[in-house]
Amino acid sequence: MSAAEPVRIGVLGRGTVGAAFEEMIGERAAAVEAATGRRPDLSGVLTTSEGDFDEILAGSDIVVELIGGTDPARDYVLRALSDGKHVVTANKQLVAQHGDELFAAAREAGVQLRFEAAVAGVIPVIRVIQESLPAVELTRVFGIVNGTTNYILTEMARTGASYEDALGQAQELGYAEADPSDDVGGADAAAKMAILARLAFHTPVRLEDVTFEGIEAIAPDDLEYAKQFGLSLKLLGVAERHDGEISVRVFPCFLYSGHPLAPVSGPFNAVMVESPSITEITMSGPGAGGTETAAAVLGDVVSILAGDAPVHEPREELAVTRDLTSAFYLHLEVADRPGVLATVADVLGRNEVSVRSVVQWGLGEDARLVMVMHDCREANFDAALEELGGLDFMRSQPRAIRVIEEFA
Amino acid sequence: MSAAEPVRIGVLGRGTVGAAFEEMIGERAAAVEAATGRRPDLSGVLTTSEGDFDEILAGSDIVVELIGGTDPARDYVLRALSDGKHVVTANKQLVAQHGDELFAAAREAGVQLRFEAAVAGVIPVIRVIQESLPAVELTRVFGIVNGTTNYILTEMARTGASYEDALGQAQELGYAEADPSDDVGGADAAAKMAILARLAFHTPVRLEDVTFEGIEAIAPDDLEYAKQFGLSLKLLGVAERHDGEISVRVFPCFLYSGHPLAPVSGPFNAVMVESPSITEITMSGPGAGGTETAAAVLGDVVSILAGDAPVHEPREELAVTRDLTSAFYLHLEVADRPGVLATVADVLGRNEVSVRSVVQWGLGEDARLVMVMHDCREANFDAALEELGGLDFMRSQPRAIRVIEEFA
Repeated sequence: MSAAEPVRIGVLGRGTVGAAFEEMIGERAAAVEAATGRRPDLSGVLTTSEGDFDEILAGSDIVVELIGGTDPARDYVLRALSDGKHVVTANKQLVAQHGDELFAAAREAGVQLRFEAAVAGVIPVIRVIQESLPAVELTRVFGIVNGTTNYILTEMARTGASYEDALGQAQELGYAEADPSDDVGGADAAAKMAILARLAFHTPVRLEDVTFEGIEAIAPDDLEYAKQFGLSLKLLGVAERHDGEISVRVFPCFLYSGHPLAPVSGPFNAVMVESPSITEITMSGPGAGGTETAAAVLGDVVSILAGDAPVHEPREELAVTRDLTSAFYLHLEVADRPGVLATVADVLGRNEVSVRSVVQWGLGEDARLVMVMHDCREANFDAALEELGGLDFMRSQPRAIRVIEEFA
Repeated sequence: MSAAEPVRIGVLGRGTVGAAFEEMIGERAAAVEAATGRRPDLSGVLTTSEGDFDEILAGSDIVVELIGGTDPARDYVLRALSDGKHVVTANKQLVAQHGDELFAAAREAGVQLRFEAAVAGVIPVIRVIQESLPAVELTRVFGIVNGTTNYILTEMARTGASYEDALGQAQELGYAEADPSDDVGGADAAAKMAILARLAFHTPVRLEDVTFEGIEAIAPDDLEYAKQFGLSLKLLGVAERHDGEISVRVFPCFLYSGHPLAPVSGPFNAVMVESPSITEITMSGPGAGGTETAAAVLGDVVSILAGDAPVHEPREELAVTRDLTSAFYLHLEVADRPGVLATVADVLGRNEVSVRSVVQWGLGEDARLVMVMHDCREANFDAALEELGGLDFMRSQPRAIRVIEEFA
């Protein structure tokens, strides 16, 4: 390919992002040429009704995969890579589930595989981890990587709406899909965290390594009570490195107001990257949107044209640990009679769970105990929770949500 | 250079950052090799008392300039570039004042010139603008790019300390230098904003194009009164593109509490990048520190080893405009007598400056009027200010500070 020739870009898929990308390529062709010396030229688009993959492949220098899902996306991307074509994809499930195979194919063919748009929308977290910080030992990568759930939680806290109503509103505004289960159940965030953990810790991370919970069980009164403690609720993805082991999790979590992620609201995403040598970097921005995602895809195309970049390769295989510590919020509906608080405190104490603050509300014959714990071993807290669930004065099952203690 | 050979790194300067960088190169050599296939090897260090520049140049593949200032740094960097060596520098004054010449030398020699550590410490804002967003039309880049002043303003607001006391404290903690004038006067931030504006808008920006004010005149009571309006004070750098013109400015500015930069406190930096196609990206992190800056320098070294990158080249020459609009906080010490508020309101109104909120405090014979305006043309506000200064009931010169209106 001579420098004067245009670079031929084949696009697979024409959904919201695909359509926005096609438009952007047209509008920004001169800017791409100014930045890289090569003019991008749309060589073909594959949709469900038109285009032929083999023809598009043969006529493209770069293949942009915007179909989503793993079938047929995996097959197309593997064929493009082994045919010596650079690939850009926005497909988190593809990279999370088939990363090992895809990275190996890219390395073998000596081509680039870029996927900035797959995680955290327009926030360039992949680039920062892979290109700014490859020589820094990262200890933690965490944040809000799903805009749908952050919008729902923001609205529940702001208006007191139920989970169902806030979800309905998110669907009306296009922030949630008709079938929202991947977003609200945490699977979407889990796929993104698997990708981030892999890159941050230079180790293979499979989707099964990521434990995840969603936000379906969050009740408006949890948010209401938590306000008394100055807490706001986020669905967090947390990937941590602990002495040769890692943990990768997604869970709803309360944050104190001083935490850098506490003010991130609506459909925004934010990611924090920590290491002793850099303290931390926080990045935030819109989590999705056709134009924003297309801009991230175009950034990857420009990077491919601008120069070489190494393809991810694991450096070691780190075990996944589940022996972790957390602080917790605990909501108990109990009979309002003498000795209840003492019994609850005793159960917690025997399990080495220490209470940071507690508020009790009377409700006629019943009472609500809302407590925030200090950090404790999660296994200890689970044992206390099970014990509490079996006590005769409990009016409903205890509800527990993790808390990140005040930001240092 | 074969891939198996180590890459020879010559370091100029051994201050805080230089010493941290030398240590980091030793500690992270294996990680750099894993990321790039090349092992970094310290080939020489030039200090005031030892080392010879010519010898170091001859024995290095990459020259890392950590001397600071422009003389002899400019000469060394130009010689390194024209000798075909890649250069990494953390020197904002060098890039801001001699950018045109340095970029031309790098392009001519076909080598890289990287300077991530020159702006916003560990926050990879240069990389994001140059490598993630080169095809995006940025409309605004702004933020807190000086950690010294942000620490001082945070402490003044938190404790009510005077500017002098807060500065003394910053000096004790190592956040401010013995001669703090470049930081507190805004010149340091101006140099950084000149670099950011150049890269964001693809146009030459000279240091003289940047108007700047510092924080020396900020009084504790301004911060106190502003709290009544929910405002917090930051020294902001703001680079904007307006229809073929740009403006680049540094000024103290109040922010409402919902603004993404409002919670950035202490010696932290934060930069926001805006464009219609990406909405906005916000990045924050430690603004300085030996280890953090060294980590940014090492990131640049890794990038050079990892692959090619284009050197900045202006695409057009944009004029600098000073016809701008802002909202303002206005503090007036006046005689407490009838008609004063009416006169002040009349002066503002005739100059097309509209008042958003006003609070009056009585102080015996005098009163304080503290007002916040809506956005208005700065020239109109300046005219109103001059007129107000000449009125016979004024007890001191009016004090004005810009305000960014609530974040949408």
